[in-house]
Order: sequence, then C-alpha cells, then structure tokens
Amino acid sequence: MRFDIITVLPGLLESPFAHSILQRAQKKGIAEIHVHNLRDYSTHKQKSVDDYPYGGGGGMVMNIEPFAACIDQLKSEREYDEVIFMSPDGVTLNQQIANQLSIKENIIILCGHYKGIDQRIRDIYVTREMSIGDYVLSGGELPAAVLVDAVVRLIPGVLSDETSALSDSFQGDLLDAPLYTRPADWNGHKVPDVLLSGNAAEIEKWRFEQALERTRTRRPDLLK
Amino acid sequence: MRFDIITVLPGLLESPFAHSILQRAQKKGIAEIHVHNLRDYSTHKQKSVDDYPYGGGGGMVMNIEPFAACIDQLKSEREYDEVIFMSPDGVTLNQQIANQLSIKENIIILCGHYKGIDQRIRDIYVTREMSIGDYVLSGGELPAAVLVDAVVRLIPGVLSDETSALSDSFQGDLLDAPLYTRPADWNGHKVPDVLLSGNAAEIEKWRFEQALERTRTRRPDLLK
Repeated sequence: MRFDIITVLPGLLESPFAHSILQRAQKKGIAEIHVHNLRDYSTHKQKSVDDYPYGGGGGMVMNIEPFAACIDQLKSEREYDEVIFMSPDGVTLNQQIANQLSIKENIIILCGHYKGIDQRIRDIYVTREMSIGDYVLSGGELPAAVLVDAVVRLIPGVLSDETSALSDSFQGDLLDAPLYTRPADWNGHKVPDVLLSGNAAEIEKWRFEQALERTRTRRPDLLK
Repeated sequence: MRFDIITVLPGLLESPFAHSILQRAQKKGIAEIHVHNLRDYSTHKQKSVDDYPYGGGGGMVMNIEPFAACIDQLKSEREYDEVIFMSPDGVTLNQQIANQLSIKENIIILCGHYKGIDQRIRDIYVTREMSIGDYVLSGGELPAAVLVDAVVRLIPGVLSDETSALSDSFQGDLLDAPLYTRPADWNGHKVPDVLLSGNAAEIEKWRFEQALERTRTRRPDLLK
C-alpha cells in the first residue's frame, strides 16, 4: 500500500513516520509513505502557495495550481484509488472507514493549512473529505499521520501479534476490559483476584462483563 | 501553559512540536512542551516498561511503576490541573473541551502503547481520559500531539490573525463556507461572481447561506 502526502510542512511529518509501527511497516515493504513538499510545485518566485481570499476576510487560502501540479504528476506515474482531503468538515474517520481504506493500493492525502484550500481543488480532485474529529487543528498534517497510522496497522503482517489488533477497542464494538500486569500488589493497590486464579473461563467471563459494563457507562452509543 | 508528555517514544513527537504554530507558541513563551521518556523511569536493567497481562491474552501491558515515578517527580515540582490519559475509550475530544483546557496552566499527558496500561495508573493518577476519535492507533503519541495542537492554538497570542481562529469550523457551530483565491479562472473553473463583486453585504449573505447549506448537508447534527 502506498500513501502520497502533499503538504507545505513536510518536516512536521518526519518523526511520526520514522518510529514504531509505521517505521516497521515501511521496512517490511508493506507500506510506502511519500511526503511531497507542496512548495516544490509552486511556480512563484518566492515559492508561495497561498493568497488572500476572494471576497475578503481573515486568513490565507491555498492556491489550486501547486496542488494540481503535484497530483497530476503523481497520477501520471500510477493509478490512485483515492485523493483524500483532510478537513474538519469531512466525514469523521472511524474504524469501519479505516478497515475499508486498508485494502486500497494507492492513496493521495492533501493537507490543508492556513485558512483552507481553494474550493476548486475539492471539487475537481478530491474523492473523499475526511475529518479525524470535531476540533480545529493547525493543519492537515497530524490528521494525515493519524489516518495513515489507523489504516496501516490493519494491513496483514504489520502488527507482530495479530490477535492484538483484533481484540482492540472498536473492532468488536465493545471497549477493552481493564488490563493489569506486575506487580500484583502496588502500594496496597491489588490486581483483581480472578485474574490471578488461572481459571480461563472465569477470566473470560469477567473480562466480557467488564468490557460490557465499561461500554455501557462510557459509550452506550456503541451498543445500539 | 505547560504540557508534560510521558511516552515510550519521545522521538515520535519531535517534529510535530518543532514546526508551525506549536513551534511559534513555544518561541513566544506562551506554551512549554516537555516530552519525557518513560524508560528513564524504569528500574529494570533493560529499561523495560511493560509485562505480560495477568489472566493471559495477547499484547503487553505497561507497568504502573515507571508512570508513577515520572508523575510523582513532576508533581513534586509544580501543581498540575490535569493528568490526561489518551485512550480510545476516553471522552471524545471536541472544540468545547479544547476551549476548556486552553485556560489551564499545567497538564500531564500519558501516552499508552502496546496493548494498554495497567488499570491502576488510570484509577490512581488519571483525572481525565480522552480519545481523539473512534479508531485505534498504535499509541497515544499522535493523539497527544493532536490534543496539544487543538488546545495551544486557542491561547490568546498564539495565532497571528486572531479572527482566523474565531471563524474556524466548529467555533460557531457552522462549517466554513467555500474559500477561493487566485486565479479567478483556472482552466475554465471560475470563482463565484459574488466573491468578485466587492459588495460586502452580498458576500456575507452568500457565505452564511453556503455555511448553513454545507452544515445541513454534511453535519446536520451540529444544527440541533
């Protein structure tokens, strides 16, 4: 699976893609992540990629030309399944969408910055607008990293312990049961007896009850 | 405002905090962001910070001792308003919560990794559990960066153009109207005439109608 991320701040994305699971997925050849500097596609002398909004108002708007040039270049090299624009008014990412995207081959992600991007980029190029939640961020870079992380970890072979991904919160519509590890007693705070009992059936029952109760209390919407 | 982020992957957070608005906020002295390596607080020879879960099952669970040692150290140095654990089963971040957090002074953020963290850390230390959305990520690091970005940009003086933050999507319960900048005609795709009219009242009316229509189509839940 290949991601091409177009951004005015390529440096911001360096460390998230160079650690942990995203690093391993790239080393294993399961995922390719390419970050493109939008300014390289500007034809302005000063490599500017934004301008004042028509009609006035605060903030700068990103021009269509550099995005168009970069996307056209990429599309001339291979077919893309999706051109995703990270935007607070897009469809909110959830685990089902992450699952759907994890079987695609090539995805372009556009990161907005400043006040936003020219609407014509969205009308002409973008196939999907995605938000990671109802809050405003400085740009689309962190959302792009979040999207890539959520998707790549679902590709078979990326996680070393596959059962771990399958029992994650949201994969089964229930939140996780509480987890405990050593020490069994920490300053008087003890691990529940059942987990030390060695009785697999009792442990499974306890975990299911705990997961159900936690979901009921915290996220009743998931039980509908 | 000060953030102390405790993580097993401090390197992952390097570039997000060294660019753009988060970098500027730190240079201006408005925000301090300190990233602590959890392994520095491990008393194991191999600096391990996790162990097998009691009761069996896949994945590793992070031990209480290193988190406890790091939090206790920080708390001995200053008072903290919140100890936030980034977790998919926490309360989902939204703009109202970001606004609330932006007036706090000192916040500790715990990043989980692997299968999760020992429940006793959550019971004893954590004041707030926060999710950034209904999807599973490799760890709490990107969510921590998202939370810090959402909060810091709201602190007065961080954004150069203050009207820009106030007119963002979600601050007024309406999504943004479409934005356009030069050129007025791009390969036949034109900017709406009203934005070139110079008639401020007409432009404002058009923008409000567009924002309302976009919100009605995409996010009717925001209009309730």
